Amino acid sequence: MNLETIRHSTSHVLAAAVKRLYPKVKLGIGPAIEDGFYYDFGDLNIKEEDLESIEKEMRKIIAKDEKFIQKLISRKEAEKILRNEPYKLDLLKDLDDDKISFYYTGEFFDLCKGPHIKSTKEIKAFKLTKLAGAYWRGDSENDMLQRIYGIAFESEKELKEHLRLLEEAEKRNHIKLGKELDLFVFSDVVGKGLPLLTPKGTIIKRILERFIEDEEIKRGYQYTETPVLAKSDLYKISGHLDHYRESMFVFEANGEEMVLRPMTCPHQFMIYKSKLRSYKDLPIRYAEIADLFRNEQSGELHGLIRIRQFSLADAHIICMPEQLEKEFEDVLNLIKYVMKTLGFKNYWYRFSKWDPKNKKKYIDNPKAWDISQKTMKKILDKLKLEYIEADDEAAFYGPKLDIQMKNVYGKEDTIFTVQIDFALPERFDMTYEGEDGRKHRPMIIHRSSIGCLERTMAMLIEHYAGAFPLWLSPIQVRIMNLTDRNIKFCEKIAKELEKNGIRVETDYSKETMNKKVRNAQLQKIPYMITIGDKEEEKGTLAVRTRNGNVRFGIRPEDLIKEISEKVENKDAD
Amino acid sequence: MNLETIRHSTSHVLAAAVKRLYPKVKLGIGPAIEDGFYYDFGDLNIKEEDLESIEKEMRKIIAKDEKFIQKLISRKEAEKILRNEPYKLDLLKDLDDDKISFYYTGEFFDLCKGPHIKSTKEIKAFKLTKLAGAYWRGDSENDMLQRIYGIAFESEKELKEHLRLLEEAEKRNHIKLGKELDLFVFSDVVGKGLPLLTPKGTIIKRILERFIEDEEIKRGYQYTETPVLAKSDLYKISGHLDHYRESMFVFEANGEEMVLRPMTCPHQFMIYKSKLRSYKDLPIRYAEIADLFRNEQSGELHGLIRIRQFSLADAHIICMPEQLEKEFEDVLNLIKYVMKTLGFKNYWYRFSKWDPKNKKKYIDNPKAWDISQKTMKKILDKLKLEYIEADDEAAFYGPKLDIQMKNVYGKEDTIFTVQIDFALPERFDMTYEGEDGRKHRPMIIHRSSIGCLERTMAMLIEHYAGAFPLWLSPIQVRIMNLTDRNIKFCEKIAKELEKNGIRVETDYSKETMNKKVRNAQLQKIPYMITIGDKEEEKGTLAVRTRNGNVRFGIRPEDLIKEISEKVENKDAD
Repeated sequence: MNLETIRHSTSHVLAAAVKRLYPKVKLGIGPAIEDGFYYDFGDLNIKEEDLESIEKEMRKIIAKDEKFIQKLISRKEAEKILRNEPYKLDLLKDLDDDKISFYYTGEFFDLCKGPHIKSTKEIKAFKLTKLAGAYWRGDSENDMLQRIYGIAFESEKELKEHLRLLEEAEKRNHIKLGKELDLFVFSDVVGKGLPLLTPKGTIIKRILERFIEDEEIKRGYQYTETPVLAKSDLYKISGHLDHYRESMFVFEANGEEMVLRPMTCPHQFMIYKSKLRSYKDLPIRYAEIADLFRNEQSGELHGLIRIRQFSLADAHIICMPEQLEKEFEDVLNLIKYVMKTLGFKNYWYRFSKWDPKNKKKYIDNPKAWDISQKTMKKILDKLKLEYIEADDEAAFYGPKLDIQMKNVYGKEDTIFTVQIDFALPERFDMTYEGEDGRKHRPMIIHRSSIGCLERTMAMLIEHYAGAFPLWLSPIQVRIMNLTDRNIKFCEKIAKELEKNGIRVETDYSKETMNKKVRNAQLQKIPYMITIGDKEEEKGTLAVRTRNGNVRFGIRPEDLIKEISEKVENKDAD
Repeated sequence: MNLETIRHSTSHVLAAAVKRLYPKVKLGIGPAIEDGFYYDFGDLNIKEEDLESIEKEMRKIIAKDEKFIQKLISRKEAEKILRNEPYKLDLLKDLDDDKISFYYTGEFFDLCKGPHIKSTKEIKAFKLTKLAGAYWRGDSENDMLQRIYGIAFESEKELKEHLRLLEEAEKRNHIKLGKELDLFVFSDVVGKGLPLLTPKGTIIKRILERFIEDEEIKRGYQYTETPVLAKSDLYKISGHLDHYRESMFVFEANGEEMVLRPMTCPHQFMIYKSKLRSYKDLPIRYAEIADLFRNEQSGELHGLIRIRQFSLADAHIICMPEQLEKEFEDVLNLIKYVMKTLGFKNYWYRFSKWDPKNKKKYIDNPKAWDISQKTMKKILDKLKLEYIEADDEAAFYGPKLDIQMKNVYGKEDTIFTVQIDFALPERFDMTYEGEDGRKHRPMIIHRSSIGCLERTMAMLIEHYAGAFPLWLSPIQVRIMNLTDRNIKFCEKIAKELEKNGIRVETDYSKETMNKKVRNAQLQKIPYMITIGDKEEEKGTLAVRTRNGNVRFGIRPEDLIKEISEKVENKDAD
């Protein structure tokens, strides 16, 4: 049996139940989606707690084992039947069939092509999950409808397993953990999609930043620092203002149109163009931890993943065509190294190519497409990477390679992108003097290495469920005293650790030691040191780790060595 | 004799000469300024090269030894005399004297109160220096006039000395050196006041950033990272939108009024307010290398000193009133340490206090003013700092301390500022729970430690004339080969140095060794290594330093040790 058919049929049962309970509602659409279905209703205004009674009504309909019956009806008749359903009438206009397909289930009917299950008894396991608002046809100019989401599976067992996984994922939700671990906050007066990193969140970001800066410098990148503000003229040249304007913050100041940059490339190109460049200077690898801005719709915003200001570890490699292969390979090796260091294992590559027939979408330069796509493929094969090819999904200016990962909810996300670009060098008239003394066009690789730092932080929070590897932990050690007598010795140990670059916190509260340890565990702190009279006497420490391991009689210098080595090696723990 | 009087009188002679050569010009104003004078003219359109003939005409007038004669004239008569001088008529309106004062010099006359020298022979040494545009009365709604600048001194000797100093300063000009040393560029399509740091400039900025971050963390600061974009609501609360709007970038997006932040404080306050705070948490020292924006007038922009986007090493110390003294002392100690590390020696403090009588300008809280001013003074005296007191120059919310330095042109600049603030905690309703279980108001210290990084870079460039101390040098070592045979060995040495974190550049060009060394010296590179067959044979290096010192037979490991130690100690060279 087709699960999608079951899910779509369940949405009909949902609509039937809602119609019974709220006869005045107007029907929108009710498709199957991943794991379930939804249905949109006009003139409905219910609350989450009402979902229970709707579910009950649905179970009644299912118990009656109603049949799904298709009827083909003339357009005129259909218009009559749907006279009180404005959204359905709107949909009817788009159909150019002679006979209009309807599905009947008991007293309920719906404009629908099917297919459907035979009868409601085939629905074995479903649950309504949440309410949301949705514009009719997704257009904010239209009516706002109320959307009811549900899930449906072939068996109760599968449904329960799904709910269990969801619950597991929910524990890893970076928004929830971000609050619990005090990593970032939002503020109504600052605005939506503009996270404020607290001291702990800032530590993680700074470590990632310095890590990637140092690593890239070692690999021959040169860092630049360019302004986030620019005249819109810059983005007229790049073409972004034409293609991308509505996602940009554009405004006027001092009689000039200004933008908050959505990209780093044109800024770095201006540095390239500030001097004459020779083939001897190439490749030039400009990197920048660049603050970028996207005017995302407020409904699209999500935690640290979709935000309006973010820091991208961006770079542009400007090279001769004959250098492209090596540079591209080096980029992939850097990305592999970064993924390994962060501890991300389950990822794959998506290689997006052009469609030579789609002349409108792509720059018409078959030779350049050929070179760049062949280069990408060659290196992917050479490095034996696991990749999927996707036709007609390239950027307009060249092929791209996305690094894909599943998030904790099982949803596929792109975390980094690498693109080969032969169009912008043309638009910006970028050149280099070749060995022949003539001017040539360079090619450009646009790439990230560690992605948008905020998004990567979100992925790390979810991946590790907040229990970051030692080198990334905002607090690496918490020191707790058994009695007030021990505070002085605790302070001495804290100072010694700090002198060695270890991030330490102390807890001298009046709680019991058990409670203190529990609190530290909830904060997912890697090392917990407890100090009582016994420890003080011997000058050693009792050391607990996050995973429950307890050791006694550890000498401070040995602990410092252990921690320093793990940090140095960036152990994934 | 009063030099100011000589300078102002010279401006009359300038106007007389211009009137002779360009009879249609309209007279603006002609005051004495530091080192000289200027005069503004309407309906004048000359070029720099015309200044010579004007100077010649001035010398003729001076040679004739014309007297300066004051005449007091009735308003009616004055209006008649000035009927063709619209700007002078405009000035006349502002005068409420019965008799209007004019000064005559030969056929030239000017609406002027004086005083003046007796006759033109007292003008011993002057020179016209440059042309500029200036709006009448400094208002961009008014006519644009042409301004001629000149300098004047009591003797030719002093004039020459001044020109020599100017020339010296010009060699240190950070805009000129920034170009020569390839530290930053501007781009017309990016816009005015928005510098792009090249790889070399970015190295300096990153070193300063990491230096101050690490130092502040050691001293108990916690870093935050907050967005540069915010709803204007945030700045309504702080009061900036009312007082400061025209210097801010304000625009609309998604139906909300947004700003590019001019300050960090309200953002960090939102983090403070995201949790309940107890007296046990205080002091909280939030630091951030914060990108800030000021919509400076385009005429105000200057190199890296006055720009529209800059990075301020900002911090806000939120503390209990009883903690203020210690915190303020720690801030001053940090600043002293930073100044010493940067090698800045000639600086002093300017302590700006309120005026209790000026009720409009200041928050009316005499007790808070008293505490905070006394605290400032106490610490300044305790630390035996050299400071100047300035009445009625505080910020509206509290007293401030500016750290003042003379730039290479002898002009006084503020490089950092420390303020005590008892007003914003009120406006933002910031509280902490005291030991008594009640809510209390904290006090706040606003401070910088290393200032605006771009401005500090400009100061460093000018202070060191581009010959940065080793730890700040974008390139620390340049390796040059005598013959192509030696390239391989050069590369080996370069790799070894780089592995030890030393920033190396190579020059394998076909130039002579002398030329190569000269090029490296022009780039002010601290260490130059030259390698020929002899060096390669022995495995040692010939090492030159910027100051002309040459040593032979240096072992690579010894050089690495020498450089590493100097960098580690941040030697000022």
